[in-house]
Amino acid sequence: MHSSARPVHGGIRPAQLRALGLDPGDVVDFSASVSPLGPPAGLWEALQQVDLTAYPDPECLELREALANYHHTNIDRILVGNGSTELIHLLARAFISPSDRGGSGSCLLLTPTYGEYAGACRLGGSEILEVVARREAGFAWDLPEAEALILSKRPALVFACNPNNPTGVYLQEEEVYGLAQAATKANSILVLDEAYLNFVEERWDALSLLEGETAQNVVLLRSMTKDFALTSLRLGYCLASPEVTASLAALQPDWSVNGLAQAAGLVAMADGDYLPAARKAIHDAKAYLTREFTGLGLQVLPSAANFLLISVGDASSWGDRLMQQGIFVRDCTSFGLPDCIRVGIRAMPDCRRLVAAAKGLTE
Amino acid sequence: MHSSARPVHGGIRPAQLRALGLDPGDVVDFSASVSPLGPPAGLWEALQQVDLTAYPDPECLELREALANYHHTNIDRILVGNGSTELIHLLARAFISPSDRGGSGSCLLLTPTYGEYAGACRLGGSEILEVVARREAGFAWDLPEAEALILSKRPALVFACNPNNPTGVYLQEEEVYGLAQAATKANSILVLDEAYLNFVEERWDALSLLEGETAQNVVLLRSMTKDFALTSLRLGYCLASPEVTASLAALQPDWSVNGLAQAAGLVAMADGDYLPAARKAIHDAKAYLTREFTGLGLQVLPSAANFLLISVGDASSWGDRLMQQGIFVRDCTSFGLPDCIRVGIRAMPDCRRLVAAAKGLTE
Repeated sequence: MHSSARPVHGGIRPAQLRALGLDPGDVVDFSASVSPLGPPAGLWEALQQVDLTAYPDPECLELREALANYHHTNIDRILVGNGSTELIHLLARAFISPSDRGGSGSCLLLTPTYGEYAGACRLGGSEILEVVARREAGFAWDLPEAEALILSKRPALVFACNPNNPTGVYLQEEEVYGLAQAATKANSILVLDEAYLNFVEERWDALSLLEGETAQNVVLLRSMTKDFALTSLRLGYCLASPEVTASLAALQPDWSVNGLAQAAGLVAMADGDYLPAARKAIHDAKAYLTREFTGLGLQVLPSAANFLLISVGDASSWGDRLMQQGIFVRDCTSFGLPDCIRVGIRAMPDCRRLVAAAKGLTE
Repeated sequence: MHSSARPVHGGIRPAQLRALGLDPGDVVDFSASVSPLGPPAGLWEALQQVDLTAYPDPECLELREALANYHHTNIDRILVGNGSTELIHLLARAFISPSDRGGSGSCLLLTPTYGEYAGACRLGGSEILEVVARREAGFAWDLPEAEALILSKRPALVFACNPNNPTGVYLQEEEVYGLAQAATKANSILVLDEAYLNFVEERWDALSLLEGETAQNVVLLRSMTKDFALTSLRLGYCLASPEVTASLAALQPDWSVNGLAQAAGLVAMADGDYLPAARKAIHDAKAYLTREFTGLGLQVLPSAANFLLISVGDASSWGDRLMQQGIFVRDCTSFGLPDCIRVGIRAMPDCRRLVAAAKGLTE
């Protein structure tokens, strides 16, 4: 029932560093895609106010109140998770009914995309259906085909990452609405993973999908890990109907969200200047990297998110050679894109180091 | 399939405090049972060395190496969890096969005990069998009856908390070995939850159960949350055969254990003086509380762990009246012991405050 193949992700593991003889301090990690600003100001001061000997609030009440205020919604529509990855696993457990029990055993993914969706669905015993983006169309998906598949196969869950990892494609409101309508008709749930949304310059607000006819068939996922560079602490949340939220909460072990992550989330929500500043830093660094890599004769694909997909020829070889210089990028072979690397947008000094190293590889 | 009834636990929730009009700073929490020493020295300094913007090691490699060194075992026998509660849920998911698929649909609990075992088993669709401790025998279980049930019902999992929460009963090696042998014959897994073991004065080492004939049928659970008062950070681990460990790891979402918890675990493992000092502090405070409560005419049950079960008559009323004075104790009604409160051993100034309040209630 359980696949032993784990999803492939970015990020650097100590086991890798040891094999390469590198110290963590020598390495710049472009393989993760989190805010380039680092954590919000005042974070450590707030963390040190937390009583480490007390249990974290299993209900995350204060953080949910801050999030509800921010989204102009109610706390019964918000579940906080130990990173959005935990919420993906809860969704798979709550809604996939293996077909040997007469339920819907399939999930539909818009691919290439984040590997954890398939990982979580496989653990649930799910058959995985895919609509694969057409590279020749700028990695657009055939959305009418996706809607037809939803209606004919009635998958338990439909995962769409928006903007998408790793292609940077950002679906517009009417496109997602079409998917949500199909999911509603098919009694499926559309999971719209908005992990990178806060870094998009021209955004639309998907909360309206949680009202009206699609209300019970849409879940929005958000990553505070990525938004506020709280990567080590783990913090994500989802927005859904009270009924869907309750069905996920029922599966979550108590105290899943640690107390420091909850405190960090409150600091982040109180800092109204943070996200605009992060978007500005990403805009500038993305323009710089796009210009420089294009100048090296490499194709940089347009991206609405805080990462760039760059076609370098042999991504594995590029990744290895950059790694020898202490620079980690995401080899996209596991996404089915063996010619591409994905580069998360970091602060400008790191970006200049990456460009200098890339120049060495293309000379 | 999913029960909506969540397990009842100790710990204070902000929602409760608000309803009572109390601030967290006004409250002393005897309802949780963690080390009275607080976190190890140097903890914050170590936490501030963690790069918050980096992903935590999904393999917890360095912490597993430290734990393997401590236990004189190999890292492939250790899985670190987001608190031992996550590991309990992983066990239920990995090993309960609902009976409608022809697997073993039952779990056996030695009760009264920690509510999360039943909670996790119910989420797995399990039938729950119990062997209830006999109060008239000092809360001893009929272990031959438990062994016979294991052999006849062949439960997927057998949970035994040792020492047991809330009764403080500590099973000896030959008693647990009998359960492990029965589990092995029945193709069950005995989960020995040793969350409070490090606070027991005369301990035996259960690691030998992971060798020989019982090797594939025993899992040991440990709580660093409790051992080192890292409650807010969440940290636990299990010890099992490499095969059982791998089957649990396959179900764990990546980055489940946050980076600060991993760093805290390393600080704790490097502090060889901590646990002996915690045991001494618990010994002294337990003796004081036992003497004082006995002097008030209340029955204090003998406990091998860092908490005491005290028969007060009406636990609910006692709990409410103490709470009005900012003192939280665990009303044991949800354990089926409506006359008992459970009191976690805290530092002496807090214990004196509890005794003073109790004197007020018995006058």
